[in-house]
Amino acid sequence: MAVGPGTLPQLHPVSGFRLGIASAGIKKPGRRDVVLMELAEGSTLAGVYTLNAFCAAPVRICKQHQAASPSRYMLVNTGNANAGTGEQGMADAMACCEAVAERCAVPVEAVLPYSTGVIGEPLPVDKIIAALDAAKADLSEDNWEAAASGIMTTDTRPKAASEQIQYQGKTITLTGISKGSGMIMPNMATMLGYVATDAEVPQELLQQWLTNVADRSFNRITVDGDTSTNDSCMLAATGASGVRIDGSDYELAALFTEALERVMLELAHAIVRDGEGATKFVEICVESAGTSPEALDVAYTIAHSPLVKTALFASDPNWGRILACVGRAGIDNLDLDALQIYLNDVCIVENGGRAASYTEEAGQAVMDGEEILIRVVLNRGQVTERVWTTDLSHDYVSINADYRS
Amino acid sequence: MAVGPGTLPQLHPVSGFRLGIASAGIKKPGRRDVVLMELAEGSTLAGVYTLNAFCAAPVRICKQHQAASPSRYMLVNTGNANAGTGEQGMADAMACCEAVAERCAVPVEAVLPYSTGVIGEPLPVDKIIAALDAAKADLSEDNWEAAASGIMTTDTRPKAASEQIQYQGKTITLTGISKGSGMIMPNMATMLGYVATDAEVPQELLQQWLTNVADRSFNRITVDGDTSTNDSCMLAATGASGVRIDGSDYELAALFTEALERVMLELAHAIVRDGEGATKFVEICVESAGTSPEALDVAYTIAHSPLVKTALFASDPNWGRILACVGRAGIDNLDLDALQIYLNDVCIVENGGRAASYTEEAGQAVMDGEEILIRVVLNRGQVTERVWTTDLSHDYVSINADYRS
Repeated sequence: MAVGPGTLPQLHPVSGFRLGIASAGIKKPGRRDVVLMELAEGSTLAGVYTLNAFCAAPVRICKQHQAASPSRYMLVNTGNANAGTGEQGMADAMACCEAVAERCAVPVEAVLPYSTGVIGEPLPVDKIIAALDAAKADLSEDNWEAAASGIMTTDTRPKAASEQIQYQGKTITLTGISKGSGMIMPNMATMLGYVATDAEVPQELLQQWLTNVADRSFNRITVDGDTSTNDSCMLAATGASGVRIDGSDYELAALFTEALERVMLELAHAIVRDGEGATKFVEICVESAGTSPEALDVAYTIAHSPLVKTALFASDPNWGRILACVGRAGIDNLDLDALQIYLNDVCIVENGGRAASYTEEAGQAVMDGEEILIRVVLNRGQVTERVWTTDLSHDYVSINADYRS
Repeated sequence: MAVGPGTLPQLHPVSGFRLGIASAGIKKPGRRDVVLMELAEGSTLAGVYTLNAFCAAPVRICKQHQAASPSRYMLVNTGNANAGTGEQGMADAMACCEAVAERCAVPVEAVLPYSTGVIGEPLPVDKIIAALDAAKADLSEDNWEAAASGIMTTDTRPKAASEQIQYQGKTITLTGISKGSGMIMPNMATMLGYVATDAEVPQELLQQWLTNVADRSFNRITVDGDTSTNDSCMLAATGASGVRIDGSDYELAALFTEALERVMLELAHAIVRDGEGATKFVEICVESAGTSPEALDVAYTIAHSPLVKTALFASDPNWGRILACVGRAGIDNLDLDALQIYLNDVCIVENGGRAASYTEEAGQAVMDGEEILIRVVLNRGQVTERVWTTDLSHDYVSINADYRS
């Protein structure tokens, strides 16, 4: 189950960025579960990683390697997260990096490993290494769609976004893929995202922009509130378009970062739409809050409430459960009588109770839709924050009760 | 579904405390949904209430009335929470109090109202008042079991506990009832608890003991992390036993507070065992933490994780999900290699990964049971904290997706 059509848009190749897909048979024989990505020499690469203290071996190695060397290859395997695997996990991830480095004639620090799947099982290193030659032979700038499928785990559909912007007669391309459907929560989740552009962007600026945009996209989605040990989101800039963006041209920088935000929002929303068992795509918008943290406290309290999420699954306009969430979000001196809550354009709460104009029919009409906006207007200040989430369905329970079997 | 046999123990009457049950037909015709409780003159009463900022009208009135007058009557209705009902809700709750005051010849401030059920619907005042004469006529010290049933909403079984302690040839009785099965979370939940004793306890001391014991019982249980707008837990002391407990006799005070904790723990655990859709009763014990807050952060992160809860439902020893929770609990400078995690007596995590001695068979044997202990040993200090929770099952989703229909 997933929300919306889920057809992939046209995925423009990014000059200087190649992808190769192969099958290592990690969980299922024949499944294409290994993706190798190659950055042209001279590319820059930015990354944001999970804040889970139990971050997996590959995440720890990615950080070390990024600090030590320009990055040339990213290796992703699915089916096994190589997390909670102790020292052996570190050695296993390094063995994979070394195998790539040897085949591609780069220093081992130029290779970054990514793993996603079950936690706590030993990484099947031999299987992965055995698939590397095929992945390398498959490297191509036209492989985005196959790579989007290659990084899936419990995802029911591949996720990708692509955009081209024109500037002074030149074209800049941004294309990306993502994966994730459960364990989705701020600070990255079982979420992997890879975006590449052919613009030239200095490393420091690239990192700054990725961090900012990830905070407004990947870090604002939640399916079940669980944060994974493996989340990573990477942004590569190859420079092959010949357009340099260094921040000195504000108009160009704005054009680029806006396009980046659209691409990353589309990738992030695709994860929510494919949330485990999702039947609804829900935006929670908290308006006129005093501060960003208080807006997010209210938004996430609603987004994580099992009672709200099951009501969404039932298409039940049970506004009392939303109201109870606002009440327990821990906001100091909340004036209950001053706030309003809306389902799309239907006002459901005002003056501390059910809105006078509210009818069950109007609420029901909103809830019957697949896409729902919950708006909470606090009337305390100027800040607006948005998060995106799903409902909680029988399928969520089935998927997560059966995942290992 | 519920965990354990669920048979009620012998419920000793508490001299000076009478209960009367009647049917107001609030949600279902004929259902006994109104309970009136009478405290003998001279009794003391302590209360703890929800911290939800949207606390319901009856909670607001309880606090006002408790401050204004000794309490003589408590009136509970189920089927309607009188929450999110604005000024009309306050007027409705007061109308019920006035009707009790008139019939029982006490000041209106001596009457405390409690409501539990659907949020945001107008309280059916006329139906409740029409049932008061029957409830009053039914008042009896032997009515604990009927009252336990009378305060149920989505509960599948009545909940009660009772204990007698002997001291210098005299008997002190403590008997209590509770209700709640969803929206269960620290700071009270859709939880109501009423405990009475025939000891004589000064008001201030009674309040202090209730607050302390509630913090270690009702405030340590969680089913779905949602906090209700209506939670209340009350402790009445009638003094009819002739034993005064004022703290000057430490041995007696210890005897009494330990019995109180056993009774309140049993009432709290009964709520978890009857948690919506529960198939498991789970204790999460975090040991050798540096501080109580960090122990509770770890415990609640595990207790609220949908991934852990669905694995519990599946009887799947997916220790990786527990480990990921400890990692994202936000503990500063957590030494991953120093901690251990156990399922009952089976060590599942040590040295940052799966325990060397661990076998799937041993883990599976624990998970196949109905009662499971998850122990996290942080090895950072001296503090131990416990919370109790359930799994997340298909029935939880069904119950909460269908509740209003």
